[in-house]
Amino acid sequence: MKLLAFAASLRRESLNRQLINLAVELARQDGVEVDLADFRDFYMPLYDADLQSSEGFPEGARDLGRRIDAADGLIISSPEYNYSMPGTLKNAIDWVSRMKPMPLRGKHGFLLAASPSLVGGIRGLWALRVPLEGLGVTLQPDMFALAQAQQALDDSGRLKDPQMQERLSKMVKGYLEMGRKLSAA
Amino acid sequence: MKLLAFAASLRRESLNRQLINLAVELARQDGVEVDLADFRDFYMPLYDADLQSSEGFPEGARDLGRRIDAADGLIISSPEYNYSMPGTLKNAIDWVSRMKPMPLRGKHGFLLAASPSLVGGIRGLWALRVPLEGLGVTLQPDMFALAQAQQALDDSGRLKDPQMQERLSKMVKGYLEMGRKLSAA
Amino acid sequence: MKLLAFAASLRRESLNRQLINLAVELARQDGVEVDLADFRDFYMPLYDADLQSSEGFPEGARDLGRRIDAADGLIISSPEYNYSMPGTLKNAIDWVSRMKPMPLRGKHGFLLAASPSLVGGIRGLWALRVPLEGLGVTLQPDMFALAQAQQALDDSGRLKDPQMQERLSKMVKGYLEMGRKLSAA
Amino acid sequence: MKLLAFAASLRRESLNRQLINLAVELARQDGVEVDLADFRDFYMPLYDADLQSSEGFPEGARDLGRRIDAADGLIISSPEYNYSMPGTLKNAIDWVSRMKPMPLRGKHGFLLAASPSLVGGIRGLWALRVPLEGLGVTLQPDMFALAQAQQALDDSGRLKDPQMQERLSKMVKGYLEMGRKLSAA
Repeated sequence: MKLLAFAASLRRESLNRQLINLAVELARQDGVEVDLADFRDFYMPLYDADLQSSEGFPEGARDLGRRIDAADGLIISSPEYNYSMPGTLKNAIDWVSRMKPMPLRGKHGFLLAASPSLVGGIRGLWALRVPLEGLGVTLQPDMFALAQAQQALDDSGRLKDPQMQERLSKMVKGYLEMGRKLSAA
Repeated sequence: MKLLAFAASLRRESLNRQLINLAVELARQDGVEVDLADFRDFYMPLYDADLQSSEGFPEGARDLGRRIDAADGLIISSPEYNYSMPGTLKNAIDWVSRMKPMPLRGKHGFLLAASPSLVGGIRGLWALRVPLEGLGVTLQPDMFALAQAQQALDDSGRLKDPQMQERLSKMVKGYLEMGRKLSAA
Repeated sequence: MKLLAFAASLRRESLNRQLINLAVELARQDGVEVDLADFRDFYMPLYDADLQSSEGFPEGARDLGRRIDAADGLIISSPEYNYSMPGTLKNAIDWVSRMKPMPLRGKHGFLLAASPSLVGGIRGLWALRVPLEGLGVTLQPDMFALAQAQQALDDSGRLKDPQMQERLSKMVKGYLEMGRKLSAA
Repeated sequence: MKLLAFAASLRRESLNRQLINLAVELARQDGVEVDLADFRDFYMPLYDADLQSSEGFPEGARDLGRRIDAADGLIISSPEYNYSMPGTLKNAIDWVSRMKPMPLRGKHGFLLAASPSLVGGIRGLWALRVPLEGLGVTLQPDMFALAQAQQALDDSGRLKDPQMQERLSKMVKGYLEMGRKLSAA
């Protein structure tokens, strides 16, 4: 099984980059090959059907499409912006959704969120499930939301609370188990 | 009362541009001043907190913020992309939400959608309500969703069915009544 | 202006009953007449179109319909059950939605939630907005969610933290201002 | 693999009862054992924590819990009430969610909707996904929504349009494939 993983944030000091690193480390320890991408690799203009007609897909979108296509599943750690998913991530999904064949169909996935607030970004993840599932991604029902992430992570980007680390570890394992079953021939 | 109106589509032949024109015409006939904007005026990069720190708000976002600020309310006609709102529109909301004072707070609004499909874009509007209401916009509960818009509109961009035109007219009037009350001193 | 207020919980020791009491007290101090109902008054069977055909509306639903009808707006404090609104409250809305004329149309409203958890019941309120707005209720965009309500309320059911009380007070005032404008002739 | 199937409607002439019959027939043809339940078997009072404390779980809820527990997955055909899931179904989920061990956790599922309207009940299903996934059910991303169901079904409850039947058949097969993989040891 091969996975594509990224934090849906362009910011260099993003808490979601730290969280995706932890999830990827756990997946690799479990023997899974992970393509850990930088969301900046997928920089693309705002979706515009006219632009698509005149110039085709932008390079960042094609790169994202290719890397989704090469994977069995996705791990995404996404911030919550304004009680929903980030426009940047939705824009990337909108571009990819126009590709034929559409690379998201048939993939599986697991969602995480890190947030400086008490709520932990979970509302953004619920909004994000809709386009992903609508496009045919089977999502792990459990999601990992890290509230007050600045205090929860130490300087080296590790979770301070062993129980929280244990919870993340169990959830990643749960996803890998589901993913392996779904990706079996 | 002054309103800002736009179709949340960059495409020139957008069905939502035709629909917003109809709504704006009705509002102007009712004596309301409407700033009808082209979403291309608000072209802006993907939201990136680092970019905001280094360069401030992009010109398209500042223009959108200024024009929201100058209005009492908003009329937005938005396509549905992948069972949710377009990433482009959410990206614009994400930029504006970082401005201080935040121009959306205290505004009122009315949402429309045109769609080539049978469902009419209404799911996208329900998703769009969340960030707008979360940011303090009082939205008219009724929304106008035009299904199979290509067949519903004639070559000059008018609704073929007089009952549909009547329905749109009533909804716009309902919004203007709500808006005038909320904007009263 | 007259308001109907209730906590959407059948439980006697409900945290939402305590929270609705605080909101009602603030509204009354502001000179508003409030019909504070006990959700047990509205006890009704599960919605069943066959039952409606054979026996008409159950007494609890009729009482709810009458009291909504007699009010200009609604204040509801609702628990979150399973990341959404309680089935009990949705069942009451389903019954009322079949009445003609439908009493919710044209009303305004304000939503609160108390929760023992860290998240505060806000996801349940976002789910609750959908049927209410779909049925024509203009909802105050701001919502008051009280997380860890057991610790936040003292033995006499008052908020321990003066800042939290101030926040509730401001939100209630904001709603009353909106409601008065919308209810003006 | 064993499945529990039901239409989430108490009404005897429910369109969703006809639709669940079609889905169950397809699953049985594929060799799956299906417990086809009548939602009236699960009649229960409104959820009330005090009632649960004093009298325990009502018989209808216990029956639902036992039959979920005995199944690997669920097929539910649900009407849409007021742009969301029926209160009746949410009430059943709320009761079941309090059981220990909680029978929904680890199950998989597939959702359908029949509706007399043009929209097909799909908004209700999106709302229904939230509590089910939140409680640990892995849902097939594809959902089958039958719009204008009265015209789409003939007197014997079969789909008139062979393409629609083919689409339903493919979706059921897709779910059974997913379910078999997830239920494999």
